[in-house]
Amino acid sequence: MQFISSTSNEKIKRIALYSQKASVRKEDGVFIAEGTKLVIESPGEMVREIFVSESCLQELESEKGNLWEKFNELRSSLPDEAVIKVSDHVFEKISSQKSPQGMLAVLRTLSYKKEDITKGVSLILILEDIQDPGNVGTIFRTAEAAGVTGILLSEGCADPLSPKVVRSTMGAIFRMPFVITKDLASSVRKLESEGISCYAARLDAASEYDKCDLTAPAALLIGNEGNGLSEEVTKAASKGIYIPMSGKTESLNAAVSAAILSYEAARQRRNR
Amino acid sequence: MQFISSTSNEKIKRIALYSQKASVRKEDGVFIAEGTKLVIESPGEMVREIFVSESCLQELESEKGNLWEKFNELRSSLPDEAVIKVSDHVFEKISSQKSPQGMLAVLRTLSYKKEDITKGVSLILILEDIQDPGNVGTIFRTAEAAGVTGILLSEGCADPLSPKVVRSTMGAIFRMPFVITKDLASSVRKLESEGISCYAARLDAASEYDKCDLTAPAALLIGNEGNGLSEEVTKAASKGIYIPMSGKTESLNAAVSAAILSYEAARQRRNR
Repeated sequence: MQFISSTSNEKIKRIALYSQKASVRKEDGVFIAEGTKLVIESPGEMVREIFVSESCLQELESEKGNLWEKFNELRSSLPDEAVIKVSDHVFEKISSQKSPQGMLAVLRTLSYKKEDITKGVSLILILEDIQDPGNVGTIFRTAEAAGVTGILLSEGCADPLSPKVVRSTMGAIFRMPFVITKDLASSVRKLESEGISCYAARLDAASEYDKCDLTAPAALLIGNEGNGLSEEVTKAASKGIYIPMSGKTESLNAAVSAAILSYEAARQRRNR
Repeated sequence: MQFISSTSNEKIKRIALYSQKASVRKEDGVFIAEGTKLVIESPGEMVREIFVSESCLQELESEKGNLWEKFNELRSSLPDEAVIKVSDHVFEKISSQKSPQGMLAVLRTLSYKKEDITKGVSLILILEDIQDPGNVGTIFRTAEAAGVTGILLSEGCADPLSPKVVRSTMGAIFRMPFVITKDLASSVRKLESEGISCYAARLDAASEYDKCDLTAPAALLIGNEGNGLSEEVTKAASKGIYIPMSGKTESLNAAVSAAILSYEAARQRRNR
């Protein structure tokens, strides 16, 4: 296994930039997954390189547990030069976390077509300007569990391939197709024209979420944390949907709304 | 309005400690709510003092909007000496936020009895060692919207009266009764003996969440982010409940699980 112990190594300098700058990631067509479990779960065919710190490697090896086994499985599926051991000091340089676990993967960027997110009986989540990386990540994680077929994001959303979003998807980023669109309203109109009913989630919508028939191809639109869905995007959707709220709460968290709506669709589809 | 411009003022030193130390808050029987909207929403009878920065006050006054109106309403319900203007520099000292908005309230600690969380047709959330403050806050916020009657927390949970949890409840902390218990398993057994069915949310439970009748008095148990519910607490509950998951997701976020379960109870109760 190659070993790098100097932070002035050119490769190391480049990887450190990946953790910080979306533009550098895009230039090289990669994204970063950090964390032992997340790296070990990543699909081998997407992996360009794996960096593991000395102490992380030692710990995994001494435990000889499930993670060690899976790590070796992944390693044997990769070319020798793809797995690189680094000193703990070097790992700190490439990590974007305060207390790094010591494993990080450089992965080839995912690229999906519009058709990838509408496969089967579509259940699409459409996100307009969801800015909190934790919210976007949690939405990916929940979407996979609810059986969502794909996610459409406006350009104003947190970058799904930023290290923080990738981490909070807990691995769902590797499996959930997604497309980023410059013009969300026209993308919504296009989906409608293809027979996918688009439901704009708004406090002032006409129908309670559990009174809508979500068993046919459907898209659920979730708006920005502070402002909700824009008028333009709302108008592009043929239907409105709301989640009843008791008490004095003014709104629900965006990831919570996405969870309640997509799980209602899943419930209806299971019980059809 | 009293004005404080020195960070060595004794009162200011004490308030700064409130933002940092749970023990000092407990000693004085108070908690902190920070943020303009949150402070203005806080119930007057709970307010001990409000601190507002010069620039925040200026901004509110010049806008003469809804917030300014509500601020003056709250102010007129309080004794004169309860609202204190401070220099921006002093506000930074008492704030726990990176970019403070300039308004902070010191509130008298909430104290509920067990009976407060079981009022009416009980719908209780029981949290075991939920450690992320954002998760606990989001659970309070969603719980109020779902019509939950109260929340029971193990001592291992993030402190619901810490500034970060209070903030992420978006005001629900002022209205949602909660009790912290030293012995969660025996509290669960007690609820069962009072006729409240306790549902332990576990991946290995027998019943799908939407197949359980949640219209009778019920409590929903949510476990720690990494480890789920303990065996002891699971055994104390008479029922198990699970949320079906598609794909390869291993678990759902704790706040998302709480949202799906409590909204399913709300749905069933609405449609009864």
